[in-house]
Amino acid sequence: MRSAERVAVIGTGLIGTSIAMAGARAGDQVRGFDADPDALSGAVERAGLTPATDLDECVRGATIVFVCTPIPVAAELVVEALDLAPDAVVSDVASVKSHVMVEVELRARVDGLSRYVGGHPMGGSERSGPDHASPSVLDGIVWVVTPAERSDDASIARLEGWVSRVGARPIRMDAERHDRLVAMVSHLPQVASTALMGLAASEEAGEPEILLLAAGGFRDLTRLAASNPHLWSDILLANGAAIGRAIDLYVERLEALRDLVVAEDGGGVESAFAEAKTARLQLAAKPQVRAGVAVLQVPVPDRPGVLAELTSTMGEAEVNIEDLQIVHSPEGGLGTVHLTVAVDTVEAAERALHERWFESTRLA
Amino acid sequence: MRSAERVAVIGTGLIGTSIAMAGARAGDQVRGFDADPDALSGAVERAGLTPATDLDECVRGATIVFVCTPIPVAAELVVEALDLAPDAVVSDVASVKSHVMVEVELRARVDGLSRYVGGHPMGGSERSGPDHASPSVLDGIVWVVTPAERSDDASIARLEGWVSRVGARPIRMDAERHDRLVAMVSHLPQVASTALMGLAASEEAGEPEILLLAAGGFRDLTRLAASNPHLWSDILLANGAAIGRAIDLYVERLEALRDLVVAEDGGGVESAFAEAKTARLQLAAKPQVRAGVAVLQVPVPDRPGVLAELTSTMGEAEVNIEDLQIVHSPEGGLGTVHLTVAVDTVEAAERALHERWFESTRLA
Repeated sequence: MRSAERVAVIGTGLIGTSIAMAGARAGDQVRGFDADPDALSGAVERAGLTPATDLDECVRGATIVFVCTPIPVAAELVVEALDLAPDAVVSDVASVKSHVMVEVELRARVDGLSRYVGGHPMGGSERSGPDHASPSVLDGIVWVVTPAERSDDASIARLEGWVSRVGARPIRMDAERHDRLVAMVSHLPQVASTALMGLAASEEAGEPEILLLAAGGFRDLTRLAASNPHLWSDILLANGAAIGRAIDLYVERLEALRDLVVAEDGGGVESAFAEAKTARLQLAAKPQVRAGVAVLQVPVPDRPGVLAELTSTMGEAEVNIEDLQIVHSPEGGLGTVHLTVAVDTVEAAERALHERWFESTRLA
Repeated sequence: MRSAERVAVIGTGLIGTSIAMAGARAGDQVRGFDADPDALSGAVERAGLTPATDLDECVRGATIVFVCTPIPVAAELVVEALDLAPDAVVSDVASVKSHVMVEVELRARVDGLSRYVGGHPMGGSERSGPDHASPSVLDGIVWVVTPAERSDDASIARLEGWVSRVGARPIRMDAERHDRLVAMVSHLPQVASTALMGLAASEEAGEPEILLLAAGGFRDLTRLAASNPHLWSDILLANGAAIGRAIDLYVERLEALRDLVVAEDGGGVESAFAEAKTARLQLAAKPQVRAGVAVLQVPVPDRPGVLAELTSTMGEAEVNIEDLQIVHSPEGGLGTVHLTVAVDTVEAAERALHERWFESTRLA
């Protein structure tokens, strides 16, 4: 088993720089390039990677190349990397796979195609740019690996081996299936949120008071609508067929619910809601798919000062709280706190909680 | 101006008991009744209200009656209260107004109808039952007042006066308009969330790995799907026509987005997303409609211990933190904490933060 690689990263944003850092942590040599000099110098500062002055210098001699650019230029850079680095496995991290794969297959020399294996690390962060990169962004995440028809077994194994070595979890599926699944659970929620916010905004033109009546549920449903329009336009167009189908299936569900409501079929409405509720409660019990973090569930009583005790326990243990969510119990009281911490601090967090008599359960 | 009322509350769950407490705080005499003896004794314990042994004893001699029961029995109880309390203004708090109003108009004696004025306090909580009631549930909330055709001006003014006196904000609109607006911003989000969760669950039957690819956005969009099926079936059926129309408009929006995506109209997709983003950012800047709480926005640096400092500051000031949300900044760092506290503790919270050099801005 190959234990160290010469890694080239093209595109040193959040994911590219995190990949560079994870490789360096695992003992790899890492070189990076970005067409934007600020992104590149940010990555040098953050990750200590060796900057290349151009693509050629970046990938020459590499054994594994990651293309971490926006979707529209990913395929072109994969093809160049296959040419410039004849010994390297070349992968990309685009969030839509078939589109990139088809473009690569159209453009690349056939003898290079065996070394191309797509991938999609299901991590990241709502933050962007190299300054927020961290090897922990990849810790424990699902990294979908999508071999193309001509990818050879050795290249697939090299990519999967590297993914495991840096602490992520490779899951192999074909590109079409990946795209169909993310259309449903990632792209469709984005479309559903945007459509709801757009509809309420257009109603507001004639009904200025409408948003006075909007409460927490509306806010939850429309939070995603604040996402980057340009980025999402790229993603949706690249996955158009699967998204079209996901929207159609969603519209069918909505119309079925509408028909039950209009027909005053209370039993039918109630059983559709009960089915969704069961599924949602099961989802809540599953570990969150999130980058490099662990979630601790801590039951807490409802009294002033208890959160202070909890967070100062973390502070004293020098554990940085990445996120903290209060889950109110239906039986009342504060209920439960979900404490999100970096994976490499979770054991310290658990020890500290135990010493202060908090119970904790690791969710992810 | 009438300064004290004899208030009767029928149905002593979260809202009914909170109404009782708000009335008592404002100097009213309050009596309550609930068909469920546990709910009634819970309200006596929590709110110190005088329990009645039956409906007659509850409303006799009252000057204002609130029916706070589930929708299916609300109209019937309004009608009984109009008969039993001939001097009282009778209101209800059902979240769908036309349905209750039509039923009341069908059943009530015509000479009583002038004293019926519907209402909908847009507050509440994800908790339920008298144990979580508080007068602060109503502080500062929007309380929609929906007069019927025969409601007389004096009765409308009495209800609106009482709502203002306990600290809520009366907004008058007709029942049909109320139902149309809540269909869009409250009932439709519930349907959209349930449909998305139902769809993902049915896909999971054939694709067990699908939820491995679900991240935070999917969780946000499906959180509401865990709501009470029976309660929602009642609400949706009672507001069937408006909900049918809201779903149709939503489906139109979704199909328009689908058509843009399938036609590869990147500019069109981007501008639809940009419009929704602008609307969502405006919404985020508006005060949250939430019951009896204030939200403080506190910028915090990204270092271990800072949350501990923040929460122990609250603990020392004896301010109970109702909720705490970390808003990561796109520029990195912890960013901002949204601290939710009861309205009656917000000034103490602000003073304590100021003394410890935290900046804070009141959002709601």
